[in-house]
Amino acid sequence: MQHTEFASDNTSGICPEAMEALLAANSGTLASYGNDEWTRRACDAIRATFETDCEVFFVFNGTAANSLALASLCQSYHSIVCHKLAHVETDECGGPEFFSNGTKLLLAGGADGKLDARGIEKLVAARTDIHYPKPRAVTITQSTEVGTVYSLDEVRAIGAACKEMNLSLHMDGARFANAVASLGVSPADLTWRAGVDVLSFGGTKMGMPVGEAVVFFDHELARDFAYRCKQAGQLASKMRFLAAPWVGMLADDAWLARASHANAMARRLGNALARLPGVAPLFPVQANAVFVSMPQQAADALKDKGWAFYSFIGAGGARFVCSWATQPEQVDALVADVRACLG
Amino acid sequence: MQHTEFASDNTSGICPEAMEALLAANSGTLASYGNDEWTRRACDAIRATFETDCEVFFVFNGTAANSLALASLCQSYHSIVCHKLAHVETDECGGPEFFSNGTKLLLAGGADGKLDARGIEKLVAARTDIHYPKPRAVTITQSTEVGTVYSLDEVRAIGAACKEMNLSLHMDGARFANAVASLGVSPADLTWRAGVDVLSFGGTKMGMPVGEAVVFFDHELARDFAYRCKQAGQLASKMRFLAAPWVGMLADDAWLARASHANAMARRLGNALARLPGVAPLFPVQANAVFVSMPQQAADALKDKGWAFYSFIGAGGARFVCSWATQPEQVDALVADVRACLG
Amino acid sequence: MQHTEFASDNTSGICPEAMEALLAANSGTLASYGNDEWTRRACDAIRATFETDCEVFFVFNGTAANSLALASLCQSYHSIVCHKLAHVETDECGGPEFFSNGTKLLLAGGADGKLDARGIEKLVAARTDIHYPKPRAVTITQSTEVGTVYSLDEVRAIGAACKEMNLSLHMDGARFANAVASLGVSPADLTWRAGVDVLSFGGTKMGMPVGEAVVFFDHELARDFAYRCKQAGQLASKMRFLAAPWVGMLADDAWLARASHANAMARRLGNALARLPGVAPLFPVQANAVFVSMPQQAADALKDKGWAFYSFIGAGGARFVCSWATQPEQVDALVADVRACLG
Amino acid sequence: MQHTEFASDNTSGICPEAMEALLAANSGTLASYGNDEWTRRACDAIRATFETDCEVFFVFNGTAANSLALASLCQSYHSIVCHKLAHVETDECGGPEFFSNGTKLLLAGGADGKLDARGIEKLVAARTDIHYPKPRAVTITQSTEVGTVYSLDEVRAIGAACKEMNLSLHMDGARFANAVASLGVSPADLTWRAGVDVLSFGGTKMGMPVGEAVVFFDHELARDFAYRCKQAGQLASKMRFLAAPWVGMLADDAWLARASHANAMARRLGNALARLPGVAPLFPVQANAVFVSMPQQAADALKDKGWAFYSFIGAGGARFVCSWATQPEQVDALVADVRACLG
Repeated sequence: MQHTEFASDNTSGICPEAMEALLAANSGTLASYGNDEWTRRACDAIRATFETDCEVFFVFNGTAANSLALASLCQSYHSIVCHKLAHVETDECGGPEFFSNGTKLLLAGGADGKLDARGIEKLVAARTDIHYPKPRAVTITQSTEVGTVYSLDEVRAIGAACKEMNLSLHMDGARFANAVASLGVSPADLTWRAGVDVLSFGGTKMGMPVGEAVVFFDHELARDFAYRCKQAGQLASKMRFLAAPWVGMLADDAWLARASHANAMARRLGNALARLPGVAPLFPVQANAVFVSMPQQAADALKDKGWAFYSFIGAGGARFVCSWATQPEQVDALVADVRACLG
Repeated sequence: MQHTEFASDNTSGICPEAMEALLAANSGTLASYGNDEWTRRACDAIRATFETDCEVFFVFNGTAANSLALASLCQSYHSIVCHKLAHVETDECGGPEFFSNGTKLLLAGGADGKLDARGIEKLVAARTDIHYPKPRAVTITQSTEVGTVYSLDEVRAIGAACKEMNLSLHMDGARFANAVASLGVSPADLTWRAGVDVLSFGGTKMGMPVGEAVVFFDHELARDFAYRCKQAGQLASKMRFLAAPWVGMLADDAWLARASHANAMARRLGNALARLPGVAPLFPVQANAVFVSMPQQAADALKDKGWAFYSFIGAGGARFVCSWATQPEQVDALVADVRACLG
Repeated sequence: MQHTEFASDNTSGICPEAMEALLAANSGTLASYGNDEWTRRACDAIRATFETDCEVFFVFNGTAANSLALASLCQSYHSIVCHKLAHVETDECGGPEFFSNGTKLLLAGGADGKLDARGIEKLVAARTDIHYPKPRAVTITQSTEVGTVYSLDEVRAIGAACKEMNLSLHMDGARFANAVASLGVSPADLTWRAGVDVLSFGGTKMGMPVGEAVVFFDHELARDFAYRCKQAGQLASKMRFLAAPWVGMLADDAWLARASHANAMARRLGNALARLPGVAPLFPVQANAVFVSMPQQAADALKDKGWAFYSFIGAGGARFVCSWATQPEQVDALVADVRACLG
Repeated sequence: MQHTEFASDNTSGICPEAMEALLAANSGTLASYGNDEWTRRACDAIRATFETDCEVFFVFNGTAANSLALASLCQSYHSIVCHKLAHVETDECGGPEFFSNGTKLLLAGGADGKLDARGIEKLVAARTDIHYPKPRAVTITQSTEVGTVYSLDEVRAIGAACKEMNLSLHMDGARFANAVASLGVSPADLTWRAGVDVLSFGGTKMGMPVGEAVVFFDHELARDFAYRCKQAGQLASKMRFLAAPWVGMLADDAWLARASHANAMARRLGNALARLPGVAPLFPVQANAVFVSMPQQAADALKDKGWAFYSFIGAGGARFVCSWATQPEQVDALVADVRACLG
């Protein structure tokens, strides 16, 4: 039997608050393509969450949210700066290049999976001739692909550098909830007040069945974006079922409570694993993911026991991800099995 | 208050059989991206439905299903023959052109919204020089955008013509269920046995919250299609929630019972409207949609009463669509209001 | 032996003024990619010709000039209004759709191959919903594909209508020289002063070996266009050989003298053919092309005699095009053979 | 005054053999779009050169040749392995990604600017999941961007590895002539007999005004490639002027004599520079380019003297390229100035 509990936060099902809203939305006929009350309420809830009159679009998944958002910032002959570990580079099968018809990703390094303003500036300055795509945007992932979180100051510094260089700033927030819960700051402070122009706000990993929100803080950048979504196969006809879960999750800050829980489970797991001899943390545990190294033999044994996890950065590296659904007993069971595998 | 009951079949909610399966699927953690039992079962159910070892991919909506399927048949410098009323031409905001990076749609006429083999041949023969995109595929909609249905013989004739001309044949089956229920033939006979290479099998209009299936009857055409879906933002991470409704709907032929009901409601509506003086049918009612003409004044009055419907083919044309959820009393209420508006 | 004299104006070779400049440019080493004196001089000559500080880019052929210019006016989910006989629609193998990643062409009719403001307005107003690509540009061909010429007033009316509707206006000037020579107006009056935003200025048919100019009268629209050309394989490394012929042709209005000659040859041919019994003009002869109908048998016999020409608009239609190189004796020889074929 | 002699091999003009043919081709009217004698002769000359019935297409420049060739080997969700210094990656402004609608370049290292079979295999094996573009092709540059040349055995080893992994092999031969001249092997041995499927055969740097040939050794891969060229704005109407220079250059192996001369000039330059104290070769001089390092101060002084050259790989790196037109006195003048700048 396979244990998929920690393979990713997308192995979990639908969170109760999202499900309740979904069921409530399944009543009678409603106008399609987003011209319904649930969609209006969901957009308003997001605007309230960000304390600003932002433009909101619901799309089906994260690849689409990121790729369409980035495409709206660039033309095909432009380029986008991202971290070399960024999901847009490593795990979207060329989605950003496809939706933008060829925009190139420029890869920067940076400790703990995070870009820094200096690195962006260097990369942007490296080539300014016609034979190389012109940088037009930067994308950062919050929380990052390696379970770390940009501090408010770090985001602000990048926001300021982007402004300086006339670059748009996109935030891949597939796990935005975990970042906000981790930092304890307001969504507004962490995004538009820090210089973020557009956010991919993740719903699926937060506990929804399907769906992400693309949130534009700059109205001009959102011009005709509804057409872009429609053409790209990202306009749901029964939109209420994408929208309602947002109403459910954002009410009473359920989304943050659920994300805090996931973060806490990751800390519990990270702390327990760190105490095991032979296991070493690869990155600080700041959100809902834990990255450790262990002897390859132990990692193999753990897979033999049925645990599914992503092997990361060479031999013996392992990623474990917690979600709204993770239970303390599951964490403890994993830790016990790791201990056993370490022999 | 707005009456959205007949605006489209996508104004209805989730059908009970789909919802039941969705709820059942929301249990525990499961492998993501389709590596789960629900997805396996849904694919098997579709294979059983079509009595063949077809390749099945679940995507989010109809624009994506059609556009990705067509893109897999063509290169950018090819062209696709479709009816001038085809959804791919009139209502997907250039989706097919976008996903294929420029493939041109060649528009043919044809009675009752249907292509015929002769018209396709003429269009294909019209240009064979390098300055015009080379035809590589044909797409037909079953049931059609105007509520008619291709007979088995009509599909076979087109299938044979395609084979002759070395063109692939795609079927836009956003309302495939309504066509099968209407004709009373087997899904296999209506598709691959008649020469269809790939089918967009509609789930949303049938009663699901979100999701369509792309079904390839030719394995070679499906090569690497999973990568195409992933790159195009059409791979659901929590795939079980797209797959489970198929399990629910295909079991015990619920999908056909539901479609038969929708068709019956349309016949009831069509018959009743046809009896009203001043109302004339625009197309035969063969599936779940009714197209009539009425005096413009009556149509305006009907909108004033809150009825939402699509205005079609010039002044006074109206489309009414029934679904799994349509109730006889709703039909009767609409008919009564039309009668009143004519008055 | 084949007579290609009237098959098209691209069957002619290099005009003496262009060749002379080409030979002069072939001296020593020069900076590549347009950073040379010849390119600077050619750009300045075009600016002088249009009496304004326009932005000039040299590309290789007409498909590229049109497609890149149009792509710079639109996003993939936009649409472009053109005449149904426009070259971008009928003879570029989907080039505009390819370079713009899916922008749709909306086809309008119009007498003598010309759009009119009213027809554009009707087409633009026909669909304003999210399911159909949003119109963003209009393209007109001057002189047209059927050898007619928009009058100054006609262009101005279209320019005003575009302004009104917030659409950009592109002119396909593959045979711009013939239009200017025909009307006897200034290039500035016929373009930017009439509302044209960007012009594809044809060099090849005018007498060059290869190359067209894309001329932006709106600097903002030209932003980063150099990158677009580079990425699209349209930046010549030995740019001097694309640029020099422009220097040669624009000096002393050689381009207009050559175009006037081509136009005169077409008039001579048109007048002579019109006098033949059984031959009827299909369009007014206003530039360098002649369109006539003749009995199918005569057209066949003419082809048997080796004359190459494009068959146009059904049975017996024929297009004959004159160029800078056309000689009166060639016109007379063709007329004699047509007369003989008419039997 | 600027000295552009060594800035690139595309700063030179048209080679006498190419010019002579160009002038000869400028006679009378000829069928356009490649249906002429010059094009037929040029294709035949290339077939004779490669001793096989290959498919030949003439396009305008190297970005187009490479991008279209690669696009014909891949779909958008595939990837292409290239060296991290490859021109397709570093100097085509995202052209390959644009023409293929998003195909990703996977970058490998390798000594002297050359890929090796082992490195390709490692890169291909690194990711085999659906979330990363699937490798479908390899491209190597011959001679390379750093002036080195793959030996026959090196190409064969890569060809065999590609066959093994079911990858197509493309050769960027912008300087193919220099490689053949350097190795003294037959063009056939260096390409299709070694496993190359398609070659971008460079004409411009060899001495032509404009134009490259795309040569397919696998007929199936060339299917409908003519349509691809047309749509992509790469079909010349007056094709004779692209074709004729090939007839001139390939006759009597003029292309190899000219390339041998360029190579000899580079050796002369490389040897002379290597003898200067403070100057060190960065790569072996195996074709027509010389890469050296020198003190930054000397490089600056050399630029002050008007010498144009490309700065390469950090401080003090310099690239000098020789061509068919390079004269020994020019080499000596450069060497003298470098010596003077070294002070």
